[in-house]
Amino acid sequence: MNNIPSNEAKISAQAVAAFANTPNPRLRQVVQSLVRHLHAFASEVELTEDEWLEGIRFLTDTGKTCDGTVRQEFILLSDVIGLSMLVDAINHRACESATETTVFGPFYIAGMPERGHGENMAFTPGEPALVQGRVLDAAGEPIANAVLDVWQTAENGMYSGQDPEQPLTNLRGRYRTDAEGRFAIRTTLPVSYPIPTDGPVGRLLQASDRHPWRPAHLHFMVMAPGQRTLVTHLFNHDDPYLDSDVVFGVKDSLKVVYQPCQANHPLAAPFGFDGSFRLASYDFVLEREA
Amino acid sequence: MNNIPSNEAKISAQAVAAFANTPNPRLRQVVQSLVRHLHAFASEVELTEDEWLEGIRFLTDTGKTCDGTVRQEFILLSDVIGLSMLVDAINHRACESATETTVFGPFYIAGMPERGHGENMAFTPGEPALVQGRVLDAAGEPIANAVLDVWQTAENGMYSGQDPEQPLTNLRGRYRTDAEGRFAIRTTLPVSYPIPTDGPVGRLLQASDRHPWRPAHLHFMVMAPGQRTLVTHLFNHDDPYLDSDVVFGVKDSLKVVYQPCQANHPLAAPFGFDGSFRLASYDFVLEREA
Repeated sequence: MNNIPSNEAKISAQAVAAFANTPNPRLRQVVQSLVRHLHAFASEVELTEDEWLEGIRFLTDTGKTCDGTVRQEFILLSDVIGLSMLVDAINHRACESATETTVFGPFYIAGMPERGHGENMAFTPGEPALVQGRVLDAAGEPIANAVLDVWQTAENGMYSGQDPEQPLTNLRGRYRTDAEGRFAIRTTLPVSYPIPTDGPVGRLLQASDRHPWRPAHLHFMVMAPGQRTLVTHLFNHDDPYLDSDVVFGVKDSLKVVYQPCQANHPLAAPFGFDGSFRLASYDFVLEREA
Repeated sequence: MNNIPSNEAKISAQAVAAFANTPNPRLRQVVQSLVRHLHAFASEVELTEDEWLEGIRFLTDTGKTCDGTVRQEFILLSDVIGLSMLVDAINHRACESATETTVFGPFYIAGMPERGHGENMAFTPGEPALVQGRVLDAAGEPIANAVLDVWQTAENGMYSGQDPEQPLTNLRGRYRTDAEGRFAIRTTLPVSYPIPTDGPVGRLLQASDRHPWRPAHLHFMVMAPGQRTLVTHLFNHDDPYLDSDVVFGVKDSLKVVYQPCQANHPLAAPFGFDGSFRLASYDFVLEREA
């Protein structure tokens, strides 16, 4: 830490004090803390005018890169600096029995179709897979009629919405649990993929000598009345990027094995597989709404 | 300061460590410091997911509000949180004899016309004024052929570029010093004005119960070969907002008096005033380029 000259310390104090009359006490606390930390950063590194301008340009480009649909470069930025996972951790303390959470990411699209039990949501090629399991409450009781809103990339590493070749509903959908709390999703095996690198966040990663890859995963948002909504992923347990996820999203408890199954597997016929497929099983545990 | 849970501290440490291989050591230092301070902020206030999303939206709106010309909402944001003035102070330490600096602001336009000695740059109404003085080096010697790039708002509080009613060159221009280092700018008396309040920065000020006003001033960028470029303002000494400038830009040494002069004042005829006018005098002192 530098010894901050008194005129500079005075500017920082004035800036924090300027927000002292904010009527909403929480907004006051958040803004004053942010201003204090941003000033501490600039003082610590003795930010130059050129660096400041580069920062202004970086933020402006980041704003321009947001397209109002699935390209949300500020979320991506928050993700690659670990801020999204930190906020996730702060907001999911002390839920010991519940399934762990991870980043929401920028690629969710609301309003995707409701799909039947075991319905195939994949309209693009890939290794056929069934993901099945139950949704339970904190006491271990199955929850009927829970909604699982799921999304994943196609085999080319792109989500629908990013890729004009895919129908928007590809590899997206809303599934419901049955009376025993069971769900079944027919899809393709998730693949690892790079986050978009053609924008400011990509340039930051390149300048930092970081790769842009995320380990293969399937996104879930699990909702049920009276339960806290769960936002998480299931990760393929054998992915090479599990230890270096560019957005720091991996947790051990969220790794699943996609077992290879043959066409004579008892689940093949009920779910319409006429050849080999992969099978992953996972039970989600929700916590009661506060 | 809160006691940060170990899993949260671990996320922050991972995020900082992810930038450890940045080849450029200065970029590494700046990014790691920024990531550390942003995480410290989120931990300190225990940022909620809704607040995080509100922040993402605020930054996205700020990006959308930038129009590529004089509307630069990120600079405005940096200005109203005092960051611009802090960076200014950090980068202008130890220049005791030189004129003090202040914020550049978002309203500069490059490539404005060269104007003759005492030429009128005002094409809109206002109280006629003459701003004159010298440009000196650190030893007090006059600098010939120094360029003063100047800009100010019209009487309606708007800069050209913001206001379709004004020609782009209105109240902007490049003046040169003569052989004795003298400059003379014919203009109108600067007025106080609010920064734009129709974007995210305006909403932040409103939520914080802060007014958006800047005290009346004339912007200068003064350039001469071998001298460090000076970016500053001259403020009207009697402005009611001098003590509460929304961007923290005021310094005592930058206040000037605009004296009332009658039509019989010796400078009236040479500069073409046919009635009363205001007269401000100021000598700029540059420091040698490092």
